[in-house]
Amino acid sequence: MKRIRDYGITIGSLETGEKNLITDVKGVKVGHVTLKDGDINTGVTAIIPHEGNIFKQKLYGAVQVINGFGKTIGTIQLEELGTIETPIMLTNTLNVGTVSQGLIKYMLSMNPDIGVKTGTINPIVGECNDGFLNDIRGFHVTEEHVFESIKNASEDFLEGAVGAGTGMRCFGYKGGIGSSSRRIKIKDEEYTLGALVLSNFGVNKDFILNNKDINSMIHENNRDLTTRKNEEGVENILEKLEKGSIMMIIATDAPLLPRQLKRVAKRSVVGITRLGSYLGNGSGDVAIAFSTANKINHYEEKVSTEMKVINENYIDYFFRGAAEAVEESVLNSLVAAESVLGRDGNECKSLSEELK
Amino acid sequence: MKRIRDYGITIGSLETGEKNLITDVKGVKVGHVTLKDGDINTGVTAIIPHEGNIFKQKLYGAVQVINGFGKTIGTIQLEELGTIETPIMLTNTLNVGTVSQGLIKYMLSMNPDIGVKTGTINPIVGECNDGFLNDIRGFHVTEEHVFESIKNASEDFLEGAVGAGTGMRCFGYKGGIGSSSRRIKIKDEEYTLGALVLSNFGVNKDFILNNKDINSMIHENNRDLTTRKNEEGVENILEKLEKGSIMMIIATDAPLLPRQLKRVAKRSVVGITRLGSYLGNGSGDVAIAFSTANKINHYEEKVSTEMKVINENYIDYFFRGAAEAVEESVLNSLVAAESVLGRDGNECKSLSEELK
Amino acid sequence: MKRIRDYGITIGSLETGEKNLITDVKGVKVGHVTLKDGDINTGVTAIIPHEGNIFKQKLYGAVQVINGFGKTIGTIQLEELGTIETPIMLTNTLNVGTVSQGLIKYMLSMNPDIGVKTGTINPIVGECNDGFLNDIRGFHVTEEHVFESIKNASEDFLEGAVGAGTGMRCFGYKGGIGSSSRRIKIKDEEYTLGALVLSNFGVNKDFILNNKDINSMIHENNRDLTTRKNEEGVENILEKLEKGSIMMIIATDAPLLPRQLKRVAKRSVVGITRLGSYLGNGSGDVAIAFSTANKINHYEEKVSTEMKVINENYIDYFFRGAAEAVEESVLNSLVAAESVLGRDGNECKSLSEELK
Amino acid sequence: MKRIRDYGITIGSLETGEKNLITDVKGVKVGHVTLKDGDINTGVTAIIPHEGNIFKQKLYGAVQVINGFGKTIGTIQLEELGTIETPIMLTNTLNVGTVSQGLIKYMLSMNPDIGVKTGTINPIVGECNDGFLNDIRGFHVTEEHVFESIKNASEDFLEGAVGAGTGMRCFGYKGGIGSSSRRIKIKDEEYTLGALVLSNFGVNKDFILNNKDINSMIHENNRDLTTRKNEEGVENILEKLEKGSIMMIIATDAPLLPRQLKRVAKRSVVGITRLGSYLGNGSGDVAIAFSTANKINHYEEKVSTEMKVINENYIDYFFRGAAEAVEESVLNSLVAAESVLGRDGNECKSLSEELK
Repeated sequence: MKRIRDYGITIGSLETGEKNLITDVKGVKVGHVTLKDGDINTGVTAIIPHEGNIFKQKLYGAVQVINGFGKTIGTIQLEELGTIETPIMLTNTLNVGTVSQGLIKYMLSMNPDIGVKTGTINPIVGECNDGFLNDIRGFHVTEEHVFESIKNASEDFLEGAVGAGTGMRCFGYKGGIGSSSRRIKIKDEEYTLGALVLSNFGVNKDFILNNKDINSMIHENNRDLTTRKNEEGVENILEKLEKGSIMMIIATDAPLLPRQLKRVAKRSVVGITRLGSYLGNGSGDVAIAFSTANKINHYEEKVSTEMKVINENYIDYFFRGAAEAVEESVLNSLVAAESVLGRDGNECKSLSEELK
Repeated sequence: MKRIRDYGITIGSLETGEKNLITDVKGVKVGHVTLKDGDINTGVTAIIPHEGNIFKQKLYGAVQVINGFGKTIGTIQLEELGTIETPIMLTNTLNVGTVSQGLIKYMLSMNPDIGVKTGTINPIVGECNDGFLNDIRGFHVTEEHVFESIKNASEDFLEGAVGAGTGMRCFGYKGGIGSSSRRIKIKDEEYTLGALVLSNFGVNKDFILNNKDINSMIHENNRDLTTRKNEEGVENILEKLEKGSIMMIIATDAPLLPRQLKRVAKRSVVGITRLGSYLGNGSGDVAIAFSTANKINHYEEKVSTEMKVINENYIDYFFRGAAEAVEESVLNSLVAAESVLGRDGNECKSLSEELK
Repeated sequence: MKRIRDYGITIGSLETGEKNLITDVKGVKVGHVTLKDGDINTGVTAIIPHEGNIFKQKLYGAVQVINGFGKTIGTIQLEELGTIETPIMLTNTLNVGTVSQGLIKYMLSMNPDIGVKTGTINPIVGECNDGFLNDIRGFHVTEEHVFESIKNASEDFLEGAVGAGTGMRCFGYKGGIGSSSRRIKIKDEEYTLGALVLSNFGVNKDFILNNKDINSMIHENNRDLTTRKNEEGVENILEKLEKGSIMMIIATDAPLLPRQLKRVAKRSVVGITRLGSYLGNGSGDVAIAFSTANKINHYEEKVSTEMKVINENYIDYFFRGAAEAVEESVLNSLVAAESVLGRDGNECKSLSEELK
Repeated sequence: MKRIRDYGITIGSLETGEKNLITDVKGVKVGHVTLKDGDINTGVTAIIPHEGNIFKQKLYGAVQVINGFGKTIGTIQLEELGTIETPIMLTNTLNVGTVSQGLIKYMLSMNPDIGVKTGTINPIVGECNDGFLNDIRGFHVTEEHVFESIKNASEDFLEGAVGAGTGMRCFGYKGGIGSSSRRIKIKDEEYTLGALVLSNFGVNKDFILNNKDINSMIHENNRDLTTRKNEEGVENILEKLEKGSIMMIIATDAPLLPRQLKRVAKRSVVGITRLGSYLGNGSGDVAIAFSTANKINHYEEKVSTEMKVINENYIDYFFRGAAEAVEESVLNSLVAAESVLGRDGNECKSLSEELK
């Protein structure tokens, strides 16, 4: 499968990790369940933060809500405590509850103490609306798909119209899952930062590819790549506004604290605005970042512990890495996703067809 | 059923509404489904904000996270857009996803356009952990209970160990659902503000009733009213810390904007700290407020509309009303709830037994 | 000078530090400049966080804005970076700029690199409005008073109508500076948490002292202890609402991170609501917390450093300590402050006269 | 004086206002005091929101802190109450206190009731660090300059190295004051949105002009346009990171509520990231937005009032307008500013010299 660099387009100046995937951060794995059958174009994607028991060994994390027209769950506790204690799941907007229940059941199956000898669990589930290509009212995702996507998780994973990305569109093209990574070398220390996005945002006329207006570059008639049937009235007018959403997951092995991770997550905005987003009202743009460096024991007995912390004077390297990796992840999602004919004859073409 | 005023205890100085319930705010209704069978002590409570189609006619709303050790969903969009577009549901922590799915299905059944001709829906579901009295790992709440609780909604409703409150405990006593209201008279305008709480917070030794330490008042041996079996190790130590949570829903017919509603919601903290809470680390304390005064049409065609807005110079009346109504709601939940013997022989006595 | 404990009133259950002052936290010092002459009743108070060069060795800090009707400066950077790099100064509302300039000049005098070889400096200056007793329009505080208050700083300091507290009132009584501290013992580790307040909030009829309504306790005719001359119209009506403000400074030697310090600062609300505050619209209630445990070097060369961090499972001890210390600090400010006859014949009586 | 459009560069798709200045919003005026003498390169800029008494007739406003390494004052109250009650002043970082005092004195001179018959005043003063070109340690701005800049305010005003912009640099070029505006036409309603920036951010190698890397476009040897003398050690290394800051003021005559204005202010980030900013750690990026449409009377007697409010379904037009106007404002600041030789021989060239 081709990636954006295969088209001669390079984003930013930092070196990529080995696979140029979020899984370049050691311990991180990604798994998909893809549901694709006529009007059904949806799925689940699981990001596993480390290989151990994530409830018993939490990681520092943070969320940055860039535009809150979204339904991601688990963010209140993430903001308050600065820790993640489950895999991060992605799915379609109307199945967030289902995936949340599936994730809770998965966590309970691994932790018999939850809800009996200790407290409960905070599931993190992000979403985008795939209703253009998917029969989203059909609720085709099940709790079992959560278990399956976690079981599927691996360091190697597909991009494009897979998992939660199966029915997404982005800048009028077929969107979905994309990923990228950066090496952060400062003096004699080296870290990795990786991103994974679920891209479902932007309008075609705003798309900027490689600093060029995509329309002037490759369109002859400014034709709309998305074809929607049977619409009228006010919805139709509003439909032309920026809708969709994007979920951006950032992982790093650098010892960043929750406050620092939030600052890094905020820089994801650089990646999407450079591609043409105006952070539209209807777009739920949410970034979640976590660090695998410090583990926080659920049953920690010590009153105080030692933590490694990145010197804030050097945090700009991580800002730049996050911005670059998010921008490249979106582009990877676009070129990896094949054209899809979905719900009610709605169709999204692949950007790869334009770039041929 | 006795309420706290029947014990000669009055909170604050403002006059109550007619029923002294959140449903004194015209249009608001509350419905319960109570699940009570041996180890099962849980349920669902629905707060209906107005009698019309809440998705098509949204209300201004706001959320104030007082302590974010909680799993309430729907808050990102509520914070960004300042509107509620579904009933507000309450349940146990591990069934938030289930109730979310049920609520989405209910909303879709009323709105065939959602997910096809227009965007999706933002369900609001709050929770507390009833695992002490309830077999919370059994997931006894179903999507059907959502439909049922909404169908049950009425201006008259029970308090105490009912609905989502069935398995809750508060200050070591049986907690649950409580409500109260206040009349806000300013010059020649009159408004109503009502509160409903799901009380599940506080430790017994901290409880202050009517400005008196409950232990010095009615306890002889500072005995612990909650009896927990078979625990040891660090959980047990931590268990003595403040846990639980409280959900506080505030309704008013005064035309408050989202920013103003957030300020009012924040004053709910006055009610719970005066009763003895220290806003413990493990307590998810979340307040949601909404106003029935201005309705925001989903398919509004006008570019600008006229709104009534309360003069901020008078907002103190609403602050005071919220603080009083929340404090009294908690006390009503405590005296209304009968003693419950629940999961694994765990037991919570009713405060009403102490006050006899 | 008598303190609240000398009246037989004890707040909370934790043991106090040796002096029961914020300066029980090793390294912290407090200095005042008191301006008192007829209509002039104002001043400056400096809280010195540690004895070294605070710009070169910053401390972790956090701010919690409880109600933002206030003009404290320095909070944007404190929130973003989580560090304090100057002493914290308190003064009257209309002299915040003056004190800020004085503080900058003080810092520049100690650091010739600022503004030339390195960046600038973030002064933190809090305020309350002492206009009732003070000729606040006269701008009687000067930049020199900043240098003087820092020079005066010591582990021993006065409470009551001194420094920034000279012209403040609180619950209708004379308010001002108050302080208190708590020992936090967890297993074999022991820490100290101290608070200092500038009290200028609350209305007399709401005051709760030792869980008793102050009016029913000591007032015969609910007489108003503050006497204001020559007012009419809408201001007068609004004047009866809760106004004023409170600044709450919390120091600890426990290694709390900025996110944790913010959570601790938030619990200051418990102290003031238990005394009767409804967090009135017109009251700027702001808490700032810092930890002396970890020092962050301005010119740190290391890419990552080791930090001690308190286990969040034990943070409730600090929440409780902050709530207790803030409540006791307010009461200490009230009993320490003598009656003052100020601007235009306005007068505030001392609570100590009531308790005699 | 040439502006960016005179170089054939157009930003975005919306039509500009008549002057393409923030003062296209009726009632808004801008005034400068420029201090330029050898090592002194600094000043003050005043943005007057409307022609009446701004304290007595407040406007809705909001602040969005994009990166909080900054010292802007007045934001706590702006965030809480959603109103501005003074002109918005801009100056250098170390004179914020001075300008704040000057602004307070100006407001007191217009309002004899402040501090006597009513409360105090919340001055809003933003800043950037001009220490590279200016003797910032010399504190050359005085309170009188505030009065003078307000007196100078007019609908016509200069851009570039004037007022607060006198000593700023941006992307390695001479920066300063820039402005732009957009017409927002929706159906039969028409509004104006204008921006004014104080640009002092970005590093040269990141600058993107008209979607082109500025270095590949006009630099032959990637030479650094800023020349700094006599530096060594860690500061020097860090100096290469993104520093500076940008203040972005957005005005509109559309009836946006504070929550909506905050959302609009947030879109200013689109403008600066498209020009090459990574929102660097050391850059204080702060946006303030206000609406002239609804006026809020300080002594309002009515309990509730009527307000016009923009339908949120159309807010994307304002998002786009803000993004475009901010981006163009920065470019206008760059081409308007002439080259400056400042403090200690430090020098910044004008972008206009490159574009000739």
